[in-house]
Amino acid sequence: MKAKVQVFLKPGVLDVQGKAVEAALHGLGWSDVQNVRVGRTIEFDVADGDADKARAEVKSMCDKLLANTVIESYAIEVG
Amino acid sequence: MKAKVQVFLKPGVLDVQGKAVEAALHGLGWSDVQNVRVGRTIEFDVADGDADKARAEVKSMCDKLLANTVIESYAIEVG
Repeated sequence: MKAKVQVFLKPGVLDVQGKAVEAALHGLGWSDVQNVRVGRTIEFDVADGDADKARAEVKSMCDKLLANTVIESYAIEVG
Repeated sequence: MKAKVQVFLKPGVLDVQGKAVEAALHGLGWSDVQNVRVGRTIEFDVADGDADKARAEVKSMCDKLLANTVIESYAIEVG
């Protein structure tokens, strides 16, 4: 079963990467680009079985390793 | 208009981050996790207007800046 986790900085946390990408895009002429946010996407395979159980497992993977829950939030897709 | 770009390493390119995350998850007891891939997600706002035109703009942003097209592939969502 495929699992996908998207990790983004929480609103209010300065997104330094986002600011850098935004400035670079403006420098290349795309001045209309705004609110650039850069996050991580982690895809992996988990054992087949009950999707809810797999979602709970992926959630605890996020809480323990994949995301720094102090400054980051995550979204999980399983299936 | 919201644009979202997902950048992943092309198949065949060693995903060092993915391997590290996989080993860490195995170390934490999730031994069934396989094929971990880590990529970037970039979200931003572009000027409202024709979605196809915006998609073409985002594509050239990817080719010029957001992705290293030698080793990375990208997927674009606009709208």
